[in-house]
This record gives sequence, structure tokens and C-alpha cells, in this order.
Amino acid sequence: MLVDGRQQKTIWFDDVDKAVYIIDQRFLPHKFQVEKIDSFSSMCNAISEMHLRGAIVIGVAAGYGVYLAVRELIKEGVSGGAFIEQLSKRIDELKATRPTAVNLAWGADRLFSKIYVSLSKKNPLDVALEEAKKIESEELENCYKIGEHGFDIIKKISEKKGKVNVLTHCNAGWLACVDWGTALSPVYYAHRKGIDLHVWVDETRPRNQGARLTAWELLNEGIDHTVIADNTGGLLMRNGEVDVVIVGADRVAKNGDTANKIGTYLKALAAKDNDIPFYVALPVSSFDISIADGNAIPIEKRGPEEVCSIYGLSDDGEIQRVRLVPHGSACINYGFDITPSRFISGFITEYGVISPLQEDIVKVCKKKDI
Amino acid sequence: MLVDGRQQKTIWFDDVDKAVYIIDQRFLPHKFQVEKIDSFSSMCNAISEMHLRGAIVIGVAAGYGVYLAVRELIKEGVSGGAFIEQLSKRIDELKATRPTAVNLAWGADRLFSKIYVSLSKKNPLDVALEEAKKIESEELENCYKIGEHGFDIIKKISEKKGKVNVLTHCNAGWLACVDWGTALSPVYYAHRKGIDLHVWVDETRPRNQGARLTAWELLNEGIDHTVIADNTGGLLMRNGEVDVVIVGADRVAKNGDTANKIGTYLKALAAKDNDIPFYVALPVSSFDISIADGNAIPIEKRGPEEVCSIYGLSDDGEIQRVRLVPHGSACINYGFDITPSRFISGFITEYGVISPLQEDIVKVCKKKDI
Repeated sequence: MLVDGRQQKTIWFDDVDKAVYIIDQRFLPHKFQVEKIDSFSSMCNAISEMHLRGAIVIGVAAGYGVYLAVRELIKEGVSGGAFIEQLSKRIDELKATRPTAVNLAWGADRLFSKIYVSLSKKNPLDVALEEAKKIESEELENCYKIGEHGFDIIKKISEKKGKVNVLTHCNAGWLACVDWGTALSPVYYAHRKGIDLHVWVDETRPRNQGARLTAWELLNEGIDHTVIADNTGGLLMRNGEVDVVIVGADRVAKNGDTANKIGTYLKALAAKDNDIPFYVALPVSSFDISIADGNAIPIEKRGPEEVCSIYGLSDDGEIQRVRLVPHGSACINYGFDITPSRFISGFITEYGVISPLQEDIVKVCKKKDI
Repeated sequence: MLVDGRQQKTIWFDDVDKAVYIIDQRFLPHKFQVEKIDSFSSMCNAISEMHLRGAIVIGVAAGYGVYLAVRELIKEGVSGGAFIEQLSKRIDELKATRPTAVNLAWGADRLFSKIYVSLSKKNPLDVALEEAKKIESEELENCYKIGEHGFDIIKKISEKKGKVNVLTHCNAGWLACVDWGTALSPVYYAHRKGIDLHVWVDETRPRNQGARLTAWELLNEGIDHTVIADNTGGLLMRNGEVDVVIVGADRVAKNGDTANKIGTYLKALAAKDNDIPFYVALPVSSFDISIADGNAIPIEKRGPEEVCSIYGLSDDGEIQRVRLVPHGSACINYGFDITPSRFISGFITEYGVISPLQEDIVKVCKKKDI
């Protein structure tokens, strides 16, 4: 998608200097900064410290992270059984950086098994790079298709009532993916098809990915939007000012229970109470059918400082932290919540829109050979 | 309640210098500052600019505002029919400062009618001051009684399971009243009775009255509490970490529909979905039985800058504003939402806990001769 009119992706590999590049999202929207990542430890750090975030891009980063680990092990002269043992250890480290999104484990495991099965025949470094790039290009393609399928939903609303009001939570736009996005992909697709739409952007405390990232994405694409406090969506829905809710997902259990950014569940409740369709957009790689329901999905607990303080742009144009809570008050910071399947109208996937029923989830997962 | 161990009220009249004093809440919790108010226009400004806020204290401030208006009219030599006409005009000005809370109009109208009926017999300045002080002391007493009645609810939970987890939204503590509070009064009462409790404090964007004011109140009273992003309550309820929700109200319609700080509705939905009791604590003066249901309650729309920026304490110890949203993105800022009566377990009033049924609301209002 566009940044100041130029095409941009979130993560890419440079074949000349053999390094991964990412947009360091911590300083957006105030500062656009690209980070070069050429060690395994700096990739782990970039994921855990959220230089990049969002289920899909974490999956892609996991692929490149394994590539960097392989490169370092080879450089250290590790081979044979020790290589597999060491690589497996690094993959565990990588997986521990963010526990909720399934794509992280999915991407890392996918590389590991590719490397493992071809170890005697192929250079593991070539295998790793090829597979990491493949994940990147597949996820880009998947996101584009999510846009195409989600477009049908938006188009139908538009035909009925004209301007379409979409509400979204957090950032499931192109910054959370390689390009296009999940929840926002149908919005971009519809906008390019000339549909008149407006997006309500939940600011999404504590890290404000909505106010910072989703708003910035939409601004760069020239799409009409309004940032709101997370508390506001219920009132807007009661007032008939929301036609459809579309969010992303970090992990979806076999029964359709969905882990997504904390606060998603509250919007799903309000959508249900006001008969507003509530869609979850995701590539099939975000389903985890090894987990029966939402209760088994681990919920990441992050540092309290993300709640008690916030970063923003000072009047002097500096990125600055301010404290919001009195010294002495405790804060707690859960990153995700679980939206029960019964509140979900459907999942928008690269294979089309499916119902939240277990049988449909299992069926779509089979298409991807999970 | 206590501030640094000293007893403190939110608003008071000083008989020596004939001025109203308030805590200027804009700088809390970072700076405790008292403001002297001795003109009608500065009272209007203090209300609209939220130096003080909260339904009850606005009602008390309205009383003192009318007193200040009367004093100025007398000083200007206005009397008779012109006096009533001018006073009525100022009262309209006063009412326009905050449209949602009914107590503002209720307090102002109560003074006006007292002054009007006694105009030929008594000095209107004496009548105004006496009545304003009466509202202050009555509301203090009401809040204490709300604590007493709400205590029964907390006590029952405590007897069943030990430590009680209360979730509250915004600030309906003593800073929103003269003392004690509405939603927090049962908490203070229970704490003084030795009940073991913990309060989940919604930070309450955009103005963060929870993180700034409720946390500060609880800290000063030594009550265990944790500040959370507004998005968090749903997850906590699903996890069984909330025993009861208690919030305040800015206006309650005849059918029990409740206007309270934006985001209250979302917590009511989550409480319902998880079978958690949801109480609204308020003095009877916050019922408005002239309004059939919530649809007729005006919702205050405030400036977008409260969403796109936030004030906090910089690392240098200065109160500073930082921008959260990219330049060019629109923001919208509604102050309140409506929680339908069907989500409310009961109203905790100075006359006891009543059901959310219209007949019970009308009955309790009659006790106060509204």
C-alpha cells in the first residue's frame, strides 16, 4: 500500500546485502523508520518489543528469523545432529517472543520441517531462505484474496444504503501483514473499486495501534476515517452509525472462538446486541485446529508500563512518554481477549467467507493441508 | 475522604470571604490544586472546562453558580421583574455548560424556584446561599446512604467468596460528588467495615477519569486497586475475575435507561454475558422521569482534541500534552452512552436498592417529591 504516494511493504529481504528489512512501527505515525535486521537475536527482539506486530507479519518474520538462525549456526560450524538440536532450541526461543499469535509457531515450524526433511540433500540455508520468501509471497497473495472475498460483503451493504460505515479494532491492515492486511484488505479493495466508505478506527489502548497505525494507513490511502476512543463503538452501533464490524485474529480455535486484540470481545457483544454483522478476516494459517476452544489459547500478559504510560508527539515535535496513572497504583496489561464463536457472523479467508461452524473451519484448513 | 491523610471535600463555601472553593481536577493525580470561584462566569467556565465534573458535584456547583449570579445582579442594582428575567437568562447559560447530567438543571431550577416564591419576603441572596448549602449537605448525606445500602451487596459477595473484585468505569467517587461518591461509596463503606476488596479501575478514555481520579482516590484511601485499559473488562469477566460492576449515572430515564460515561454500555453487555451483577449507584436527583427512555437523553459531544491528544506527566515531572493520532485524521468525542435498563441489576439510591422497573423508579422519585 501507499506511504506518501510510494508503494511499500512491511517486511522484505534484500538479496544484495542478505538482510531482512522491516518498518519499525514503534514510531509511527510520527516517524517513518526502516530497520535492517541481520541477526537472529535482533529478529527475536524486534518481535517481542513489537518493532513489527500483527499475526501475519509475525509469521513471515518467524520464517526469516529461522533463516538467520540457520545462517549463524552454519557460520559457527554446527552441523548434523547438533545442528538440528541447536536450531530446534532457537526456534523455541523465537516462539516464546509472543505467545498468542499462532502464525509465529506456524511459520517457524514450517521452516524447520522443510529444513529437516531435506537436510541430507540440500543446503539448509538455501532451503530456509526459499521457504521464508515463499511464506512472504503466499501471505501477500492470501491477504489480497481476503480483500476480494470481503469486498462482496461491503458491496452488498453499499448497494442497499450507499456509504458504508466499517468499524475496526486495532490494526489488521497492511502493517500487520506484508501488504493489503486482513480486516482492512476488503476496505482497500472496496475503495479501489470506487465504493463510498468510512472507517471508525478504535484507538485500541494500551498500545494505540488503531490511532497510530490504522489511521496512518487509511490517511496514506486517502480513505475517509474517524478515530474514536475504544469506549465509543457501543454508542455508534446503537445510533445506527456502524454497518459492519471487521477485525483480524491472532489465533482461532477449532470451534471458532477467536483470540484478537484485547477489547474485540466487547465490540462483538455490542454488534450482536444491535444486529450488526461481525466478521473476522484471517488467512487459514491463523486457524489452530489443534485447540478445541478459546479457553486453551494462551493470553499474553505484557508489562504494566504500557497501561500506566503512553507515547505521543509533544508540541515540540518530539516523541515523548507521559505517565497517566498516579505513582503507587498498579496496572495490568493483557494483550488479547477471546470472542466466542457465537458472536461471529463469518470468517473472511483467502478461500472465501465461511461460517463460524467447526465443520467449516476444519474443511477450510484441509485446503491448506494443515 | 482522605488526601495525604487529611479530610477533604470537592466543593465548599467559605463564609469569611464569601467564595466557593473547588478542587481543580484537571491536574490530578499529578498536582493537587484548589481554585477560588467568586464570579458567575468563572463557575460556568469551571463546569464546562471540567475543573470539576461528575453529576452530583455539578448539581451542587449549579446551586452556588445561581448564588453568584444573584449576587452580581443585586450589585448591578437589578430588581423586580428584570431581576427574575435576568436570573432566568443566566440559569439558561449555566444549564448549557454540560447538557447530559440532569443534576445541573435540577440544582439550578431548585434555587430559582426557591428564590422566586420568596422574592417579596426574603433577601434572594440569603435564600440562594441557604439553598445551595442545603443541596451540598443533602448530597453528601445521600452519598453516605448510597454507601450504606450498596455495602449490603458487597457484604453478601464477601460472605460467599472472601475477597470481592469490583469493576468500575470512569470516576463516580468523592471527586464526582461532595464526598463519599456514588459508585465508590459502597467500596469506601465496605473498606471501613473491614471487607477485603479490590477494584478494577477502567482508565476511561478519552479523559482518563478512572486512571487519574478513581485511582488517586483509592490510593489515598489505601484500597487495593488495578488500573486497566477500557478494553480489558470483558476478558476479566470471562475469567471470573469480576464479582460485581458498580458505575454512576449522569441521567436515568423513567424506564431505567441510563446515561453514563461513554463505554458503560460495553461493560454492561459483558456483565450480562457473564452473569455478573451490574449496579448503577445514584442519588434520586439523577433520575429524570420527565424523559420516557434513553433515546431522549441528549449526548454531549466534546472537542476532538480530547481524543487526538492526552495529558500526562513527562519524565521531567511536567504536565504535558502529547498527540496520539496522525495529523489529518479526524476524531470524534462523545461523552456518554446509554445503557438499556434490561442490563441493569438494580439502582443503589439513598433510599435503598431498587429494581430497574419503571414503577420502582417512579415510586422512589416520589419520596423526593420530584
